[in-house]
Amino acid sequence: MKKHTISILVENHFGVLARVSGLFSARGYNIDSLCVGTTEDPAVSRMTVVVRGDDRVLEQIIKQLNKLADTIEVKDLTREDHVERELVMVKVGVSGRKRGEAVELADIFRAKVIDMGSDAMTIEATGSEGKLAAFIDMLRPFGIRELVRTGKIAIGRSPKRIEKGNEDDE
Amino acid sequence: MKKHTISILVENHFGVLARVSGLFSARGYNIDSLCVGTTEDPAVSRMTVVVRGDDRVLEQIIKQLNKLADTIEVKDLTREDHVERELVMVKVGVSGRKRGEAVELADIFRAKVIDMGSDAMTIEATGSEGKLAAFIDMLRPFGIRELVRTGKIAIGRSPKRIEKGNEDDE
Repeated sequence: MKKHTISILVENHFGVLARVSGLFSARGYNIDSLCVGTTEDPAVSRMTVVVRGDDRVLEQIIKQLNKLADTIEVKDLTREDHVERELVMVKVGVSGRKRGEAVELADIFRAKVIDMGSDAMTIEATGSEGKLAAFIDMLRPFGIRELVRTGKIAIGRSPKRIEKGNEDDE
Repeated sequence: MKKHTISILVENHFGVLARVSGLFSARGYNIDSLCVGTTEDPAVSRMTVVVRGDDRVLEQIIKQLNKLADTIEVKDLTREDHVERELVMVKVGVSGRKRGEAVELADIFRAKVIDMGSDAMTIEATGSEGKLAAFIDMLRPFGIRELVRTGKIAIGRSPKRIEKGNEDDE
């Protein structure tokens, strides 16, 4: 089943998250990831939802979302040119010589060490799904103690763009 | 009202997000931000919820969360030493000379330009709430066209840590 990234702009009213997530679960959809946070206007929040499903049922969900009183806009970003990013924090067990190896790996993925303890280290990385999956795989041999991820957010690309040289390896 | 960052580990079952968000809204709590994504074990998801409220009512919500069949663990991270991070993507209107100014600003905040169009640019930044608020404020004069944020994720600090020199400015 195809993954869809849905971006929903909503009035920041009480209970709107419960209504939106209820709408997905009422249709039997499991949500892969969901992020919700305020926009530049504190009265407006944006939800980014990743769900798997066929186009037809998803079309119905988008219609239902549009009917909610709090909904301002719904977009299936999968249908347009967009950039997707996610943030992940991984705590790995490291000490002694292993510590240097983990820092080198973080550098390769342009990740940042954000906490270091006597026997563990926390690394923060951002990127596309593929990049983060590769990063997490490389960390597995160190022993992953904890992993927290935000879920995906997405934004439409700007027209007539000039490609950045380092974009493809993200 | 104090902000609390709650970390909830749940079985990745159908409808669990609707149940958790329903629980918050039934108590009249508005959620500042919420992230949900899978952990290193695909059968387990972690939710990070930021809510405002007094300690007593929040205590009750944590008890209710612990009673849900899908709940594995609930932690109020506000009560322990932890690192918080968020990812934001901001699309600003820039062209000509303004473009260089925006790139310089991104460098100062260790942010990355991830898309560039003929009259707009998208910048990705990660950091604490305070850092991101300052970054967004600096971008306002360029004209913010779109802003998407993940909401906060958090992870406990490792014991006997060695402080990284650049941590406080994040």
